[in-house]
Amino acid sequence: MPSPKIRNIGPLPSEEAKWTELRKIEWTDQTGKDRVWEAAARKTRSSGGVDAVAIAPILRHPSKPPSTMIILQYRPPVEAYCVEFPAGLIDEGETPEQAAVRELKEETGYEGKVVDCSPTIVADPGLTNANMQMATVEVNLKEGEEPPEQHLDEGEHIERLIVPLSELYHKLKALSQEKGKIVDARLFHWALGLHWSQYVKA
Amino acid sequence: MPSPKIRNIGPLPSEEAKWTELRKIEWTDQTGKDRVWEAAARKTRSSGGVDAVAIAPILRHPSKPPSTMIILQYRPPVEAYCVEFPAGLIDEGETPEQAAVRELKEETGYEGKVVDCSPTIVADPGLTNANMQMATVEVNLKEGEEPPEQHLDEGEHIERLIVPLSELYHKLKALSQEKGKIVDARLFHWALGLHWSQYVKA
Repeated sequence: MPSPKIRNIGPLPSEEAKWTELRKIEWTDQTGKDRVWEAAARKTRSSGGVDAVAIAPILRHPSKPPSTMIILQYRPPVEAYCVEFPAGLIDEGETPEQAAVRELKEETGYEGKVVDCSPTIVADPGLTNANMQMATVEVNLKEGEEPPEQHLDEGEHIERLIVPLSELYHKLKALSQEKGKIVDARLFHWALGLHWSQYVKA
Repeated sequence: MPSPKIRNIGPLPSEEAKWTELRKIEWTDQTGKDRVWEAAARKTRSSGGVDAVAIAPILRHPSKPPSTMIILQYRPPVEAYCVEFPAGLIDEGETPEQAAVRELKEETGYEGKVVDCSPTIVADPGLTNANMQMATVEVNLKEGEEPPEQHLDEGEHIERLIVPLSELYHKLKALSQEKGKIVDARLFHWALGLHWSQYVKA
C-alpha cells in the first residue's frame, strides 16, 4: 500500500473546527496575579469525563519470553507513522475497562483481561486538557496459535508488533531511527521505566 | 499561599492566539482517499525542532534507597495541580541535554549528569504535534546534605517531592486520589514500567 501523504497544512479558523478548539483561560495565580493561559481541547469528551484509554498488553506464552504488543499507525498531526500502545476514545456509556478490551480486540485482534487500570492522567497539561486512563491487559497465548484477525474501522490502518519486554527499550530506539517513524512519549516512558528497573534496585 | 483560581474559560479566536494555533491538515490516506485532520500546535518551537525536554531524575544517596524527584505545579489547562517530572521548553541554541540540566536546577535546585537522552518522542499524536525528549539525569546526594534552593522564574510555583523508586507507583495512585491533583501520563507510564518489571521477568 502507498504511504499516506500530507497535501496541505493551513490555519483552521475556530468557526470551522469540528473536533478541536482553542480556549482562553483567565486565572488568578498563587500570588493573586491575574493571568491568561492558552489551551487546546477536544470537543468530543464523553459524559464519563475521560477522553481515551490506552492499553499496555502483557503477552504470556508457554515457551516465549513475556512480551508486549505495540502498534504503528499514520498520525497526521506529527506527519509520521507513530509507534504507540493500542488506544482509543471511550464511547458514551462505556467504562474505561470495557473500552480497553474492545479497542485491543479491534486494533490487534487479541482478547485479554484487564489486570490494572490507572486513575485519570493527563497527556500534555501545559498545552491541552486531554486526559486518559491506562489499562494493563494480560493476554494468554497458546503454543502454535496463529495471530488473530484485526477488526479495524473504515479508514484505520494499523500494523501490530510483538516485542519481548526485555528488548522494548532498544527496539523503540531503533524504530525512532527509521525515516518517517516516531515513538509516542507515553510508550517510551513505560519502556524507560522498565529499562531503568534493571539498574536501580530498591 | 492561596490556591490558584480559574476565573473564566472561553473560546479563543485564532487571531487572538499568541502561543497556540489550530491546524487543518489535508492528507491522502493509504487507500488514496482524501481526508482532513484537525490538530493543535504550539507557535513557539525553536529551530532545533523539539519543543521541550523532560527529566527523570535518579537520586542516589549513601544511606537511602534510589529515588526520583517529581514536582507539583498548577496547570490551568487541566484546572488542577499536576504531578509531573521536571520539564521545560528548550531555548533557542540549546541542546536537549543542556536544557535538561538547566531546567532541573531551576525547578528543583539539584545539579545532575545526563546519563541517557531519548530520541524525539510525541506527547499526544492524535491531537497535537507537540514533541519532546526525555533525559535521565543522575543526581548524587551526600549524607546530611540540605535540599538546595530552587531558582524559579517569575510566576513559577513548584513543589518538589522525593519518592523512592519502589514506592513511586503507589505514591502516584495516592496523589491522584487527593482533591485538585492529577498525574501526568508520561510520569505515570514511567512508574507503571518500573512497577510491572517486578512481575514480569524476562
